[in-house]
Amino acid sequence: MSSGAAAGTPRPALKRGLFLSFEGIDGSGKSTQARMLAETLRAQGREVVLTREPGGSPGAEEIRALVLQGDPDRWSARTEILLFTAARRDHLERTIQPALDRGAVVICDRFADSTRMYQGLSRGNLRAMVDKLHRLMIGIEPDITLLIDMDPEVGLARAKGRQGTEERFEDFGADLQRKMRAGFLNLADEYADRFRVIDGARSPDQVAADVLDVAREVMAEDPA
Amino acid sequence: MSSGAAAGTPRPALKRGLFLSFEGIDGSGKSTQARMLAETLRAQGREVVLTREPGGSPGAEEIRALVLQGDPDRWSARTEILLFTAARRDHLERTIQPALDRGAVVICDRFADSTRMYQGLSRGNLRAMVDKLHRLMIGIEPDITLLIDMDPEVGLARAKGRQGTEERFEDFGADLQRKMRAGFLNLADEYADRFRVIDGARSPDQVAADVLDVAREVMAEDPA
Ligand SMILES: Nc1ncnc2c1ncn2[C@@H]1O[C@H](COP(=O)(O)OP(=O)(O)OP(=O)(O)O)[C@@H](O)[C@H]1O
Ligand SMILES: Nc1ncnc2c1ncn2[C@@H]1O[C@H](COP(=O)(O)OP(=O)(O)OP(=O)(O)O)[C@@H](O)[C@H]1O
Ligand SMILES: [Mg+2]
Ligand SMILES: [Mg+2]
Repeated sequence: MSSGAAAGTPRPALKRGLFLSFEGIDGSGKSTQARMLAETLRAQGREVVLTREPGGSPGAEEIRALVLQGDPDRWSARTEILLFTAARRDHLERTIQPALDRGAVVICDRFADSTRMYQGLSRGNLRAMVDKLHRLMIGIEPDITLLIDMDPEVGLARAKGRQGTEERFEDFGADLQRKMRAGFLNLADEYADRFRVIDGARSPDQVAADVLDVAREVMAEDPA
Repeated sequence: MSSGAAAGTPRPALKRGLFLSFEGIDGSGKSTQARMLAETLRAQGREVVLTREPGGSPGAEEIRALVLQGDPDRWSARTEILLFTAARRDHLERTIQPALDRGAVVICDRFADSTRMYQGLSRGNLRAMVDKLHRLMIGIEPDITLLIDMDPEVGLARAKGRQGTEERFEDFGADLQRKMRAGFLNLADEYADRFRVIDGARSPDQVAADVLDVAREVMAEDPA
């Protein structure tokens, strides 16, 4: 892969695809909506690369496994940020950038905004460090970020309607989820140009219709 | 561990140990000299932590294994720099900083100067990026860096006198080793305050005597 994705390097003007990310609190429906959008666009004949973070390339998946295995205190916040940034760099170079270069639509289930949120809120305030590291080593943002927004209680109610998933929601407190929701909404203000906030407390099809409207609007502006 | 090792955070004034690193081309005698110095200082009753990079803490050793295993093209230069920096951060927090905090002498076989050299010379010129990343995420330099300097031919001759090691020196060319030597000497100029250049083309005991002189000089300035 060329170093075309380096910080500050302009991307090629021709045949550049579209980079969409989904963000939102746990269980808000990111993966569901990412999958539905991918199916719809593929049915319309677009090349779609559906990917996720952390992970998304073989090397990044190995780094992800190294970060997530073992004792949660195994890595300090700063080391963890470096490992996730290494994984993101690999994902960018091996999966995202080559797909964009051939004109594909890349749909990414979580991207750098999740790091901004989780490191910024839950492990000491390292937001400024995360931002500097992103500018230095990644240097790319999605064209559009779809924030699937909802009251955490809705997610909790959905989880309670299913078996065996209650524990997961107790692990994260409802309180932390509320902070996360507010944090994502703040990010949406901060990066108002690229964020679109979608009401996620509706049926999957209703949410998907709004998601598709946003995707169509962006593709009309930026035809591949 | 506290975040006392963060970039820009002053270290505690009391009970602070001494941080020495060894640098130099392959086979110049870094590990031999690091070991000899550790033995001498221990015999004098000092607490010495002898460590090395990449690696030097359990987490850093795992990252090292991930970087070094498999195809050499597996990681891009930028991803590799991020992984080595993650390993260095872990090594710093788990091994180096706690030892310095209790007043020990830390002797490190290679540190950030090796990254400056190898990334700066052999994988495209990423020196500026390496420096920015170091300032942002590591933020500490050794008190003294001992550069074991010698003509690469001397190392080659030493290697030829032993069995089974010839291949290693053919892998790296003598040409690259000469560039590395010049690169290390340039670093010694750039960081003249902390670098000491030692003539490594002598017997281990002769080299060790010079190394010990430097260590004593620094310990006299900065008694633990
Ligand atoms: N609009 C919806 N209404 C009801 N249930 C939904 C809706 N969207 C998704 N779900 C269900 O809620 C659960 C969580 O959805 P999904 O996995 O898509 O969320 P997520 O945001 O990707 O979660 P995580 O953060 O854990 O990856 C799934 O079981 C999914 O089937
Ligand atoms: N002054 C010396 N004279 C002769 N041989 C030496 C001398 N110092 C070290 N050696 C031998 O040279 C070889 C390389 O030494 P050593 O492993 O200490 O180098 P190094 O700089 O750590 O190498 P590497 O970069 O590969 O880690 C060893 O076999 C060692 O015994
Ligand atoms: Mg998901
Ligand atoms: Mg060695």
